[in-house]
Amino acid sequence: MPLTVDQAHYLFAVMRLGAGARVALFNGRDGEWTAEVVEAGKKSGRLRCLGQAAPQLDPPDLWLLFAPIKKERTDFIVEKAAELGCAKILPVQTEFTNAQRIRQDRLQAHALEAAEQCLGTYVPEVCDLQPLAAVLKGWDPARRLLWGDESLVGPAETLAGLSPGPWAILIGPEGGFSEPERARLRGLDFVTPVSLGPRILRADTAACAAITLWQSALGDWR
Amino acid sequence: MPLTVDQAHYLFAVMRLGAGARVALFNGRDGEWTAEVVEAGKKSGRLRCLGQAAPQLDPPDLWLLFAPIKKERTDFIVEKAAELGCAKILPVQTEFTNAQRIRQDRLQAHALEAAEQCLGTYVPEVCDLQPLAAVLKGWDPARRLLWGDESLVGPAETLAGLSPGPWAILIGPEGGFSEPERARLRGLDFVTPVSLGPRILRADTAACAAITLWQSALGDWR
Repeated sequence: MPLTVDQAHYLFAVMRLGAGARVALFNGRDGEWTAEVVEAGKKSGRLRCLGQAAPQLDPPDLWLLFAPIKKERTDFIVEKAAELGCAKILPVQTEFTNAQRIRQDRLQAHALEAAEQCLGTYVPEVCDLQPLAAVLKGWDPARRLLWGDESLVGPAETLAGLSPGPWAILIGPEGGFSEPERARLRGLDFVTPVSLGPRILRADTAACAAITLWQSALGDWR
Repeated sequence: MPLTVDQAHYLFAVMRLGAGARVALFNGRDGEWTAEVVEAGKKSGRLRCLGQAAPQLDPPDLWLLFAPIKKERTDFIVEKAAELGCAKILPVQTEFTNAQRIRQDRLQAHALEAAEQCLGTYVPEVCDLQPLAAVLKGWDPARRLLWGDESLVGPAETLAGLSPGPWAILIGPEGGFSEPERARLRGLDFVTPVSLGPRILRADTAACAAITLWQSALGDWR
């Protein structure tokens, strides 16, 4: 298979691989494959697949909705969602979200890098920024929404009683959700508010904790 | 109460507070207090306590042992351990740990900042770097040790069957533990190996996930 300029640069200029070197490949569908370098050029190259090294591991049908915060913490949330096993990542604009746009391509590259680093074979799609109200308006109620409600500081509910199936997790920005947003969320049948313990967590910490709790109760960590 | 030079600089030069302004105080023992600025100087100042705003919230008796990794990720682990509720943080040197020393003062300041940001009233002590072997040698077996064993990639065990009490969590460096370290850990009665799901996690992700699982099963998130 032929390589793109970026891939050739990384393998042959950065990693300094030559013909005959072994490389692990994944395309998001067919698991991990072992390949051999056949041609190594400055801007191009070719690999030959030798065989499958590991089966495809898809995450459960879990989406993460989060309000983008500062650059480093937004990067971090995308990385952790990819590592902990989310199928799709939806940045959403809430009333207290400062971000007007996101670098979708950069965040998608972060998700890819997280999968590569952790020997994953699945890269979650990172969607473009959308207003939370619009996302909720078009929501399929068959997908339940676990809402990290920062007003519920206290013992974390156990998620063990919830039923498996398509889910999403919603994490707010610093400052939480506005009162109209909270009223809207409370009025939606598919929304389950949840506490994340007796301490107030930053948005990135809340995302990690909520995904972990969901994965261990309803996901593929069971 | 009198302020240090750093505190006065932060309140009066950075935050530009003046006499009469309200400030939230905590000392790690007596909860959160509301205070008023009485004197605001360039390098000094005085506050007067008005009353307690929130009771002290101590974390459960949970320690985090981790092998320091790259600077940003080490900072991150300390921050998340403080937010998620650890009582003490012990950086440990394993065979595959590159770090020979840590900036203990900087990490302690990170733990303090995390508590301030999250309206916490407890700051976990960050110990200096110690060899894992020495820590295990002096270990009180009454404290159980939950070992994030990266060889156990698969369904995460439920922690619900474990007994409460003093615990610690051990997270390895990138590259995991050496075979002699693994044999040592497997031979210790107070050690419980645990899987953190079917994906390989970075050390910082593993620390967040393990603390979350422990808190929800055995800690104060119940």
